[in-house]
Amino acid sequence: MSRRGLLGLAGASVAGIGLGVAGDRTALAAGSEEASASAVYPFYGSHQAGIVTPAQDRLHFAAFDVSAGTTRAQLIELLQDWTVAAAAMAAGQDIGEYGAVNGPYDAPPEDTGEAQGLPTAGLTITFGFGPTLFETADGVDRFGIIGRRPADLTPLPHFPGDDLDDGRSDGDLCIQACSNDPQVAVHAIRNLSRIAFGRAALRWSQLGFGRTSSTSTTQSTPRNLFGFKDGTSNIKAEEPGVVTDQVWVAAADGPAWLAGGSYLVARRIRMTIETWDRTILREQEAVFGRTKGAGAPLSGGTEFSEPDFTLAGREDQPLIGAAAHVRLAHPSQNQGMKLLRRGYNFVDGNDDLGRLEAGLFFISFQRSPAQFTAVQLNLARHDALNEYIRHVGSALFAVPAGTAEGSYVGAPLFA
Amino acid sequence: MSRRGLLGLAGASVAGIGLGVAGDRTALAAGSEEASASAVYPFYGSHQAGIVTPAQDRLHFAAFDVSAGTTRAQLIELLQDWTVAAAAMAAGQDIGEYGAVNGPYDAPPEDTGEAQGLPTAGLTITFGFGPTLFETADGVDRFGIIGRRPADLTPLPHFPGDDLDDGRSDGDLCIQACSNDPQVAVHAIRNLSRIAFGRAALRWSQLGFGRTSSTSTTQSTPRNLFGFKDGTSNIKAEEPGVVTDQVWVAAADGPAWLAGGSYLVARRIRMTIETWDRTILREQEAVFGRTKGAGAPLSGGTEFSEPDFTLAGREDQPLIGAAAHVRLAHPSQNQGMKLLRRGYNFVDGNDDLGRLEAGLFFISFQRSPAQFTAVQLNLARHDALNEYIRHVGSALFAVPAGTAEGSYVGAPLFA
Repeated sequence: MSRRGLLGLAGASVAGIGLGVAGDRTALAAGSEEASASAVYPFYGSHQAGIVTPAQDRLHFAAFDVSAGTTRAQLIELLQDWTVAAAAMAAGQDIGEYGAVNGPYDAPPEDTGEAQGLPTAGLTITFGFGPTLFETADGVDRFGIIGRRPADLTPLPHFPGDDLDDGRSDGDLCIQACSNDPQVAVHAIRNLSRIAFGRAALRWSQLGFGRTSSTSTTQSTPRNLFGFKDGTSNIKAEEPGVVTDQVWVAAADGPAWLAGGSYLVARRIRMTIETWDRTILREQEAVFGRTKGAGAPLSGGTEFSEPDFTLAGREDQPLIGAAAHVRLAHPSQNQGMKLLRRGYNFVDGNDDLGRLEAGLFFISFQRSPAQFTAVQLNLARHDALNEYIRHVGSALFAVPAGTAEGSYVGAPLFA
Repeated sequence: MSRRGLLGLAGASVAGIGLGVAGDRTALAAGSEEASASAVYPFYGSHQAGIVTPAQDRLHFAAFDVSAGTTRAQLIELLQDWTVAAAAMAAGQDIGEYGAVNGPYDAPPEDTGEAQGLPTAGLTITFGFGPTLFETADGVDRFGIIGRRPADLTPLPHFPGDDLDDGRSDGDLCIQACSNDPQVAVHAIRNLSRIAFGRAALRWSQLGFGRTSSTSTTQSTPRNLFGFKDGTSNIKAEEPGVVTDQVWVAAADGPAWLAGGSYLVARRIRMTIETWDRTILREQEAVFGRTKGAGAPLSGGTEFSEPDFTLAGREDQPLIGAAAHVRLAHPSQNQGMKLLRRGYNFVDGNDDLGRLEAGLFFISFQRSPAQFTAVQLNLARHDALNEYIRHVGSALFAVPAGTAEGSYVGAPLFA
């Protein structure tokens, strides 16, 4: 049934090198482009893939609303169907028994087929549950899970400067598909949307063409559309202590069904790149608190040097200003809180004034939404970057732990 | 000044293998992903790059309108500035004297910087002139070129079923940026848009994430979002006779300034993939006239077998139906006319009904727009595929010949 027989097998053997226990998907270095095409990350494991997995190059993200009238049993069936399909696609296989081309001729193909012949390209598919999934509809606890809502799963607060579009925010369910081949990611979202037909409908979706974060020390630091290196001090998979402390929901955090999971925050951040591009280099570097070329902190050193926020230059002014992005986002300014960032650059055409509709689709994973809220409050109030960005979409999802083979994603929520 | 010193050099040496005379950019096989990252295609040559160049994986296409009040001299200056910048980017360099990070600190960087550290990834930048560039504004021959308008450069006719959006159609100028890295293509369009500021403004733009055509026998045939192989019988660079006959404007065709150039047709074709996905496999194959798996004609053979339109099956019905796409688009049904197709799959989010805004951004190059018009009339009238597609954007551009070093793109038009 594998549509990519040889490639899939080759990929699997590559992926096998260095893969430890189930759920430890972090050991595969995306060292060469060939490796990134043939990379295979197992869907099943103790944590969902697509979080500490080395960030792939391309993204298709989708938020869904459960359709009116869908029952608890139908929601569970949808999650079961999604699980089977996601596991197949992550393994480089078509969805369904017959796939895209093996008949029967008198039925629509189960798989839409555009990924045939493509390598798996490190596809990961990550599912999340939004706050509204746990809310009543017409006064009814439609899925019988309101009592199991995580205390932390409440809509994010309104931050200063937020200019949110409801049509690009929130959702009952989300799917993050990441791959080194955009067609593989698009194929995944398309087929999962199709599976959902009648049970859940696409609310909004976002493609991202370039990763803006590294989540592994094996990866080079990419650049955002301001031309700066992004995610230099991101949480890396090679720091298991930090990951445990800052990314995974612990059993003690509650609720029990979410242990081993995480919280996903998505923010569509529109960049006014035309204004930025007219800003002098000195100001650009002052805004970030880093040099544009090497990405070194303005307090000196190289890209990975720790910024020294106390170091002063001329006239006793701090080399890294009070409003510099690197200072305000730094754990030392946020009670030690860190986020695992996993965002992507996007360009969605242009507006009527001929300005590119460009920006950053920010994604972060954290043990509690409070981590994001604390950092974002700090940024929203003081960040010099605010002059050049606008948050236009926002969503929060609880991401359940990984799935055991034979089970389905989020099963403990319904157990 | 090269921001990608080592990579650029490595790429150049790869590109050097098999490169013949200037303008012969077809010999570089994109055999491995490593090669596709380091590929370098020279900007200068007898023909513009990005036409018979092996189709890269990603696209950013932009159409511009010249700003009101721009003079002939200013338009020429814009083309000169675009030429210098495009040649630098194609060589893997920053634009400008100082680039993105080499100061002066009290000026905005000349290059926006997001492509720093990325390989050239086979970047090609192809310029075209739309019909409206040759029209009067307020009764004035604003650029003094109306008398030099090619007789063939008239707006395309309205085809049956056309549902065109003015905001996604036409334009005075166009730029096609193709690369194997989307961020490299986006960087090119962004910086060229910025250079145009005050002289020309973005009218519309389109990203494409996956090529749907091969333009070289060294490339495998990709799939469109209907899941079918696309472009199997496309013109290939390895057929120089066909390219000369069907793609390049000959000196005798006139006007003289366009000799060695081509015509570019762009069509934004929205696919109603949800309807397609509910269509049975037999019908899908009948619509295309090919098998979905191997892409072989329904008359038998393998992908590259010539379709036999006379072969009949049960009840004397032709195996490839009268309305099959492969039949209607075939040169034998169009007076031997062929197009060099160079299109891309796109997904631009979703509509309000939760349907993916997906489709094919069709691009073709031909010696005369009449080739496209003949084939498209045939398709628009009879193609079984019309039930599943809608043409929503359309544009035609005259693509001047390549540029000699020291000159600028389109110089013969102004000579």
